[in-house]
Amino acid sequence: MDYDISKPHEECGVFGIYSDGGTLPAYAAYNGLLALQHRGQESCGIAVCDRGVISYSKDMGLVTEAFNDKILDDLVGQMAVGHVRYSTAGGSVRENAQPLVMRYIKGTLAIAHNGNLTNAYELRHELEHRGCIFQTTIDTEVIAYIIARERVDSPSIEEAVRRALPKIQGSYSLVVMSPQKLIAARDPHGFRPLCIGRLDNSYVFASETCALDACGAEYVRDVEPGEIVVVDSNGLRSIKDPVNVKKSLCVFEYIYFARTDSIIDGISVYEARKQAGRMLARQKPVDADMVIGVPESGIDAAIGYSEESGIPFQKGIVKNTYIGRTFIKPSQSERERSVRIKLNALSRCVKGKRIVMLDDSIVRGTTSAHIVTMLKDAGATEVHLRISSPPFLWPCYYGTDIPSKDDLIACHHSIEEIGKMSFADSIDFLHLDNLPEMAGECKGFCDACFSGKYPAPVPDYLIANKNYDYCTPIKRF
Amino acid sequence: MDYDISKPHEECGVFGIYSDGGTLPAYAAYNGLLALQHRGQESCGIAVCDRGVISYSKDMGLVTEAFNDKILDDLVGQMAVGHVRYSTAGGSVRENAQPLVMRYIKGTLAIAHNGNLTNAYELRHELEHRGCIFQTTIDTEVIAYIIARERVDSPSIEEAVRRALPKIQGSYSLVVMSPQKLIAARDPHGFRPLCIGRLDNSYVFASETCALDACGAEYVRDVEPGEIVVVDSNGLRSIKDPVNVKKSLCVFEYIYFARTDSIIDGISVYEARKQAGRMLARQKPVDADMVIGVPESGIDAAIGYSEESGIPFQKGIVKNTYIGRTFIKPSQSERERSVRIKLNALSRCVKGKRIVMLDDSIVRGTTSAHIVTMLKDAGATEVHLRISSPPFLWPCYYGTDIPSKDDLIACHHSIEEIGKMSFADSIDFLHLDNLPEMAGECKGFCDACFSGKYPAPVPDYLIANKNYDYCTPIKRF
Amino acid sequence: MDYDISKPHEECGVFGIYSDGGTLPAYAAYNGLLALQHRGQESCGIAVCDRGVISYSKDMGLVTEAFNDKILDDLVGQMAVGHVRYSTAGGSVRENAQPLVMRYIKGTLAIAHNGNLTNAYELRHELEHRGCIFQTTIDTEVIAYIIARERVDSPSIEEAVRRALPKIQGSYSLVVMSPQKLIAARDPHGFRPLCIGRLDNSYVFASETCALDACGAEYVRDVEPGEIVVVDSNGLRSIKDPVNVKKSLCVFEYIYFARTDSIIDGISVYEARKQAGRMLARQKPVDADMVIGVPESGIDAAIGYSEESGIPFQKGIVKNTYIGRTFIKPSQSERERSVRIKLNALSRCVKGKRIVMLDDSIVRGTTSAHIVTMLKDAGATEVHLRISSPPFLWPCYYGTDIPSKDDLIACHHSIEEIGKMSFADSIDFLHLDNLPEMAGECKGFCDACFSGKYPAPVPDYLIANKNYDYCTPIKRF
Amino acid sequence: MDYDISKPHEECGVFGIYSDGGTLPAYAAYNGLLALQHRGQESCGIAVCDRGVISYSKDMGLVTEAFNDKILDDLVGQMAVGHVRYSTAGGSVRENAQPLVMRYIKGTLAIAHNGNLTNAYELRHELEHRGCIFQTTIDTEVIAYIIARERVDSPSIEEAVRRALPKIQGSYSLVVMSPQKLIAARDPHGFRPLCIGRLDNSYVFASETCALDACGAEYVRDVEPGEIVVVDSNGLRSIKDPVNVKKSLCVFEYIYFARTDSIIDGISVYEARKQAGRMLARQKPVDADMVIGVPESGIDAAIGYSEESGIPFQKGIVKNTYIGRTFIKPSQSERERSVRIKLNALSRCVKGKRIVMLDDSIVRGTTSAHIVTMLKDAGATEVHLRISSPPFLWPCYYGTDIPSKDDLIACHHSIEEIGKMSFADSIDFLHLDNLPEMAGECKGFCDACFSGKYPAPVPDYLIANKNYDYCTPIKRF
Repeated sequence: MDYDISKPHEECGVFGIYSDGGTLPAYAAYNGLLALQHRGQESCGIAVCDRGVISYSKDMGLVTEAFNDKILDDLVGQMAVGHVRYSTAGGSVRENAQPLVMRYIKGTLAIAHNGNLTNAYELRHELEHRGCIFQTTIDTEVIAYIIARERVDSPSIEEAVRRALPKIQGSYSLVVMSPQKLIAARDPHGFRPLCIGRLDNSYVFASETCALDACGAEYVRDVEPGEIVVVDSNGLRSIKDPVNVKKSLCVFEYIYFARTDSIIDGISVYEARKQAGRMLARQKPVDADMVIGVPESGIDAAIGYSEESGIPFQKGIVKNTYIGRTFIKPSQSERERSVRIKLNALSRCVKGKRIVMLDDSIVRGTTSAHIVTMLKDAGATEVHLRISSPPFLWPCYYGTDIPSKDDLIACHHSIEEIGKMSFADSIDFLHLDNLPEMAGECKGFCDACFSGKYPAPVPDYLIANKNYDYCTPIKRF
Repeated sequence: MDYDISKPHEECGVFGIYSDGGTLPAYAAYNGLLALQHRGQESCGIAVCDRGVISYSKDMGLVTEAFNDKILDDLVGQMAVGHVRYSTAGGSVRENAQPLVMRYIKGTLAIAHNGNLTNAYELRHELEHRGCIFQTTIDTEVIAYIIARERVDSPSIEEAVRRALPKIQGSYSLVVMSPQKLIAARDPHGFRPLCIGRLDNSYVFASETCALDACGAEYVRDVEPGEIVVVDSNGLRSIKDPVNVKKSLCVFEYIYFARTDSIIDGISVYEARKQAGRMLARQKPVDADMVIGVPESGIDAAIGYSEESGIPFQKGIVKNTYIGRTFIKPSQSERERSVRIKLNALSRCVKGKRIVMLDDSIVRGTTSAHIVTMLKDAGATEVHLRISSPPFLWPCYYGTDIPSKDDLIACHHSIEEIGKMSFADSIDFLHLDNLPEMAGECKGFCDACFSGKYPAPVPDYLIANKNYDYCTPIKRF
Repeated sequence: MDYDISKPHEECGVFGIYSDGGTLPAYAAYNGLLALQHRGQESCGIAVCDRGVISYSKDMGLVTEAFNDKILDDLVGQMAVGHVRYSTAGGSVRENAQPLVMRYIKGTLAIAHNGNLTNAYELRHELEHRGCIFQTTIDTEVIAYIIARERVDSPSIEEAVRRALPKIQGSYSLVVMSPQKLIAARDPHGFRPLCIGRLDNSYVFASETCALDACGAEYVRDVEPGEIVVVDSNGLRSIKDPVNVKKSLCVFEYIYFARTDSIIDGISVYEARKQAGRMLARQKPVDADMVIGVPESGIDAAIGYSEESGIPFQKGIVKNTYIGRTFIKPSQSERERSVRIKLNALSRCVKGKRIVMLDDSIVRGTTSAHIVTMLKDAGATEVHLRISSPPFLWPCYYGTDIPSKDDLIACHHSIEEIGKMSFADSIDFLHLDNLPEMAGECKGFCDACFSGKYPAPVPDYLIANKNYDYCTPIKRF
Repeated sequence: MDYDISKPHEECGVFGIYSDGGTLPAYAAYNGLLALQHRGQESCGIAVCDRGVISYSKDMGLVTEAFNDKILDDLVGQMAVGHVRYSTAGGSVRENAQPLVMRYIKGTLAIAHNGNLTNAYELRHELEHRGCIFQTTIDTEVIAYIIARERVDSPSIEEAVRRALPKIQGSYSLVVMSPQKLIAARDPHGFRPLCIGRLDNSYVFASETCALDACGAEYVRDVEPGEIVVVDSNGLRSIKDPVNVKKSLCVFEYIYFARTDSIIDGISVYEARKQAGRMLARQKPVDADMVIGVPESGIDAAIGYSEESGIPFQKGIVKNTYIGRTFIKPSQSERERSVRIKLNALSRCVKGKRIVMLDDSIVRGTTSAHIVTMLKDAGATEVHLRISSPPFLWPCYYGTDIPSKDDLIACHHSIEEIGKMSFADSIDFLHLDNLPEMAGECKGFCDACFSGKYPAPVPDYLIANKNYDYCTPIKRF
């Protein structure tokens, strides 16, 4: 079930374009952000640069809500940077919309950031002790300060970025737009994806390749972990300082976050999901009449499961795509029905059938229970639940919003128990050992949320309290 | 490709509920309209009746845009009637939003209508000659007048409806809410669907069963062609005058309009679509590596084709569900790219493959050409186009918005030519003869848009000019 | 205190223009409605006619809120009719916005109406018995039906209007726009004002001359009571059937409703108000240090009082013009302060002074008490209240919204008592006998709200219940 | 003519309240800002502090547009700070709305500022060289940085403010809200007003006393030039370091900016304006039939002129108060009419009369010409223009938005010529020598815009280019 509070959440999507003149950067960014919308629906923004002068527009809501052709026509320039931001459970704050646009010693700068710093607290603390003020609660403002400080003594913006990045820890895929240059950077672990595309002589950066496709650009390559890529009137060049860390792309990008048509670090998301389905078919075979997937991401795994097992793939469940963020939640007493408004069973299809149902993950377990119940109410005789990821057991400090352990069903119940609580006739999760095979060629990913093995250091106070509140709270109405 | 200007359009969806007190009618209507949203996205409305007093709210836009919990909480009552309206290409006019709420000799009345009258011109003409005024351009206002006139001399509202309906010709599925009663009626041909559901002791009417599911009601049966169903404090009763016409449900409901999880007149939409795919597999077999469907409706036929042919089903194309009505169309020079923003090929999946691609219909042919091109650009070696309906050759006068013959590619080109214009390696349409088999048990449907055989009379001036402009134009800004 | 719930309310303002081509009708209407805004702030609308095709825009709110240049540019035509509507205490309903635009036997018609029919109940009743439906609760829809019916057998629209008007009773100043003609009509009593202006070869109709000034037109004359004025390509002509009734312009137009710069039926509103002040100075002289007026309408009377008495005029009170309809009312416990947010005393000016304070009328008496208290708190030693109209004792059936007798302080208290309840040191109202002198040349006005002498018959059921609810209630959210 | 582009503009209004619990700070701020609305209509905001946690809401538009009771109810706290901001001719930028709310070393801070720094360029330059980033273009952000830096080494927020203020030059009236304290400060010259009020045991700060009246507070005294006033749970205390500068309150506050019911530094604005009128009557007597004022601020001077000269005061001109910022300007060819839509002559009143017309100032001269023409068109035989301020000859660097010298008519024409260009029969300005008498008791004000004598130093680059663009431009759409 997609993009639901019942799922972990990615933080953002970023986009950048340095145009050769043949493409309108604001329109390219608009199309690119539309393609990245699944990575964040809270707010979005586009900043363009027209011969050194930055214009921008950002607002709460979806890309189609925040922009219209009048605004895009106003956003004239040779470069653009764009951002989509995910809606947190709590309040959504206008100030936190990105790109962050600011003035500093060398004029203006626009920054879009996907990721999560693990040393943001120390950095804010140190900056505040030097007299800095903060107008947002986003890590991007911390990054902006670090870059601005380094720029004072650096010969160029790319050098300032190069000097700044070693100071920040955690995950980041950045696009920075200075008056003359567009810069992309990815943290040394490569936690979050970031790719490079080309459209004639324009260069494009995006969180996923589906955004390249949407603006007509060809995929060139991914930005490498620890790499800084600079585009200006002289073309594209790479800066890479040697670092001794293992690549650790977030494996959940393949399982759930990324769009199925994206290629991340060389691996097709669709193929990875099908591969997970295939492995689940091998892990624990079951005799059934049909395989179905919980839309949207469960469908890919279901196709793979069907291929491997020979059990026919069917639709089984349909999703109402008109229900977005503003959907009115039913009252407490009708919460169960809420699932049936978003998802509905194809009753004629499932009636009297033994079903294997693929879903991408289980967090609290309640949604799975509702879906299995819906299928049985529609007449399914058996429902075998297959989850294309291992159970969530650990918090993520690198930008994925996983509920606290208190809410993670797998922290308190055995797999067997989870199956029973879901009313499933059998249950299986993808084995941790099988994760590497899922995204075969991708050497090195982070599976800390399943394994507890954190590739980058995490401060003790964060371990003690994942949501360590280092920002004084401010509410905006 | 769904709900696109490249497809024919349904006119509306209707909903009604008479509550036993256990269900809030406005919230049930909200959930029901969400499920019917695919039948119309221009405007929507809900009217409720609280001990004889009608309250309502209607607005332009989607259900999630037009309503919030404050509005729904204000809409207190024991009955509700709701409506979603389709967005015409031209201007969308606030006045035309439904339900039509009015005062008349017996108090108030709210009417929601799906369909198209073929004698609206004559009726308006006659009414105007009696001094009537019209504030909208919708047929519903004509129906309202006819009912209001009959009510003057009728002993009850249901008797007024019974006397009024023989005067109107064409297609209609109606829900009428009087101060004490909720009435559903379907034209004698049964052109448009209308079903009855039950939720404890509440009765629900809806265009499709998916709306019953969404509000938790059980499917009871369909309203029969020519039947009037009345619900009041005494429960439900049926009025049916004998008419000598053949049932003629719009076959395009199965092919494209209805939601795949709906059951219409006893036939599962999903099964009908799969059956169309199966027949296409038999009609003109082809040697290929995979079967894919153009999302969303093409997927069901693709699954059926895969079942019949044994060629594996794959995703192949992904659709961006965040792109709605407000999507900014690219400039003329980039129109082709517009398809790639809504749909994208899974390049790794299709590369080097021979593909059978299922779509539900072809109107102008341009979209098909764009999609085939996209697949070939992504590396597909062959694309065989299979269309799960016959070619459009005739206009519809019963409520389906099909472009004029000038724009229908099949009116000007052979099937062979359409295949070539689509850059497809082969093409096939579902044979007209095979339509009955598609929706097997459904005795009697209308296939006039394919066959030219119109089950109900059409006035000559409409044949001469389908969009006969019997309303003096008024523009609202 | 202006346009406050503490005052009686006018119902509407109307505007019409038939352009010679030198003036853009929509812009002229916009400027005219801005000048008539004091007559109604609930909703407004403009309809234009472009070679027979009507376009229109209407919305809730002020003219500046409902229109922008994009909308005005869309409203292309040779004629325009406009309307501003007053905000009732209860709900404001979008449907009731005017002009009413409709289709009828001869095409389209737009109608704007100021006034109140006394036989609307009978007319609706009769129309409903003929099968008519009503989508609004405004009298204008009744008028539209009557005209539409007469048009069936009339050779022209003006003849239809001529035949229709004798059927409607009560007050009306109408502007009707047919595809070719602009028609103005005023009821035989001339209850509501309506004037004719000329701008080069364009003709303008408006409720008040200030609207003529605003669009640059010269005042020609008033539409006479019982007169129908038609403008078309042949110019302007008058239709007047002899009726034997006395002219009865609402005297409250001079006292409060009309803008001070308007000339109504030959009388300057400003001069009338000053004259009322002069008479008050003669009626009951008082020894004081300054004369002040409650802004805005009390100021004119204060200037007149000062002239007659020789007591200096001072500002004394200032009004916050930024506080409009959307002002948040303070909590119950702070209601008294609400007056001080809208009005404030000039403390240095009034401290230690004996003050004569002019206000236009007293309805409930509470506002007067608040203002007198405010002045005394600011240090005024004496406040002598002078009211430039007689006490309200009777309801109005011709379009003025006066509270019921229960709320009229003068129905329950002597003038002496009202003075004490207002904390005033003395009080005086304009004598009923002096009203004629106030608006000297204006032969014949209606003072029924003060005198109880109704110039036109009022049905018994209306006398029994002024707000006779002949419309079935419908709420819109 | 009020708050028109033809007038100089004030920059802002500030408000603060430290509540004893009996008053809701957000509602008090709302009422206070309503009273200060004339000082700025572009944007507004309120921040409250609830036991250390700041909440705020700010938006573009008027106070009545930006706030509703839901927002005010959300703004719970013991303190509030509010701000109204003036609408610049160019773009209005959401980021620049105040109060500026930020996090810094000691938690959160909200700052509202009225004034203009003359050394903002140097300060920003220096801060940027230390690596600071700026997200707005307002001086308030510079002040915030200076305070934040001083707070690092200061024992308290008030000490930080005390150390920060000597670093900033120019004009400022500040209200600063820290988690525990509310602080008001006024620059040593006292360029902008700032007063203290008391409401039971609550303390209130406001730009003008009319805001104290609006929230029911009693005027205590003005904040003295160079004074810092701190309110916390211990009550109110003053900090004042000796500075050797002369008080220099902007004299234009009396002439035009302030509301007529305010008392600024002990002087009644109304009395000052009347006094200006009296002096004009003595400066250059004229034989006339009536004295009128251009609404609103010209009326006070007209009353004073009438008192001194004995010539009767009349209304003469009426202003349409429904026309606000969103009024659609007429096309170029109709610009002259624009004045008549905002202002209209009382034709019967002025016809055949010799008129003395008081206005507060002349900037470009075009508006005066339009008004005189309007009066003569209405039949006035003579119009004698009297301006209650000297001619504008010099730019202001302390926060008043006066057009550049190129646009100041008095920089290019003699008074005689200005009179002729205004079509006036005679003209007179208040003599520079008479300014002190206008605001008698107010020892020391700044009249630099008339005299060129600047009480505080102005950097050369500002003299060379008043609008020295020290901020890299950023456009927001």
